[in-house]
Amino acid sequence: MPEKAIDIRGRRLGGEDPLICSPLVGRTHERILAEAAVVIAKGPDVIEWRVDYFDEIGDTAAVLETGRALRAAVGDAPIIFTRRSTREGGERIAIVDEEVVALYDAVGASGLVDFVDFEMGNAPGHVQRVRESTRAHGTRLILSYHNFGCTPGVDFMVGRFMEAERLGADVAKVAVMPRNRRDVLNLLSATDEADAKGRIPLISMSMGPLGSVTRMIGGVFGSSLSFAVGAGSSAPGQIPIADLGAVHEVIRRARGA
Amino acid sequence: MPEKAIDIRGRRLGGEDPLICSPLVGRTHERILAEAAVVIAKGPDVIEWRVDYFDEIGDTAAVLETGRALRAAVGDAPIIFTRRSTREGGERIAIVDEEVVALYDAVGASGLVDFVDFEMGNAPGHVQRVRESTRAHGTRLILSYHNFGCTPGVDFMVGRFMEAERLGADVAKVAVMPRNRRDVLNLLSATDEADAKGRIPLISMSMGPLGSVTRMIGGVFGSSLSFAVGAGSSAPGQIPIADLGAVHEVIRRARGA
Repeated sequence: MPEKAIDIRGRRLGGEDPLICSPLVGRTHERILAEAAVVIAKGPDVIEWRVDYFDEIGDTAAVLETGRALRAAVGDAPIIFTRRSTREGGERIAIVDEEVVALYDAVGASGLVDFVDFEMGNAPGHVQRVRESTRAHGTRLILSYHNFGCTPGVDFMVGRFMEAERLGADVAKVAVMPRNRRDVLNLLSATDEADAKGRIPLISMSMGPLGSVTRMIGGVFGSSLSFAVGAGSSAPGQIPIADLGAVHEVIRRARGA
Repeated sequence: MPEKAIDIRGRRLGGEDPLICSPLVGRTHERILAEAAVVIAKGPDVIEWRVDYFDEIGDTAAVLETGRALRAAVGDAPIIFTRRSTREGGERIAIVDEEVVALYDAVGASGLVDFVDFEMGNAPGHVQRVRESTRAHGTRLILSYHNFGCTPGVDFMVGRFMEAERLGADVAKVAVMPRNRRDVLNLLSATDEADAKGRIPLISMSMGPLGSVTRMIGGVFGSSLSFAVGAGSSAPGQIPIADLGAVHEVIRRARGA
């Protein structure tokens, strides 16, 4: 569905081939830049800075300084700026949600990042403010839903994707934990169904070792981006960039089989 | 499910890792042996001789002679002996079904092959005779269902797997053609469900470029063997052995991720 695609810095999110995104999970400026150097050498399409791991998240100037250094370090790769909450698998941080919204606004205003990921489970007023702020700054908004406990039913997951779109997201993301193979297939089914119904690119994955196959082949069923390990993992089931790239290459060749 | 596994010539069908099987589709004794040499060098676990491609299928002595040469050529790899009917995607042959049943009996008696694949859509009396003959000779029976036109519903496909088991198969195989991504997921769902219900190893695939992903990751959902190209393809969507092996290796590593 090319009409859904988002073209950014020479990459196409939502096109025929899923993008590979590698997370940065360093706690300090120096560690994040060291991590970025290792990760970029492995050639991911996109970088995600998981700022909830950053010790200085409470110091906006420090965040912007690291953001500037990161922007320079990763060259032309699009950057996703993400604070993941503890409710959805992230790290404990020193600031409250209100301050996170202000931080997102400052980072968006800086023009250093291309996407922000905000959980749609946040307070509705916060979701709305982040939506307005990203629009004002020309940053793309990923609205996300994570469940580390289980995989909800197909209809519920389709509902999360559609809710993200209704809330004005540019991209909708759903990540869930499977308890069995049926759950893994349900995540793929929900992605397929939401991709047929919706008008924005989707990102989805079933987590953990059992779900890791969805990180490899989710693109076939409508997921436009997959997270893979460059230096450090940010969620269970992520595989190395080289492994994911190899599988994507086999899938590309198989289209002609 | 180790209790389901079939151990044969050092390979385990139905164990944790799916096996890779490469088809031979040569028309002459010489072509088949040349093909076997190329294929074996690529290291598949299992070889399938698609005897419906063999010009001399009507000459039992010629079939046995090629079978003997093949047995010597492929070393320790298990061999599947398969006549695929034109109804289910095979080649036109010079003999009638009654003679095919006699050929299966002669080949089974020779001890040259480890498995025979017989379509469960054959006449019930023929299915029964092949079942009795393979039991008498200690050959394993794969009862198969192919649909090159569409992907039937999940319940129908589960029914095919269970029908194979009811008819006494050692292994049940279902191969279907998808028209959309939903069909691909349905084949995986049926495999998952039949694997949970049944007591024999299963083989399944969704065919064509759209379904080729099931050849890569079907093992995660209960398919114990996948066909891959060594020298020539026998069905649409088969990918090269090296590509399939690479994906299987990534999946194995991801179990620990």
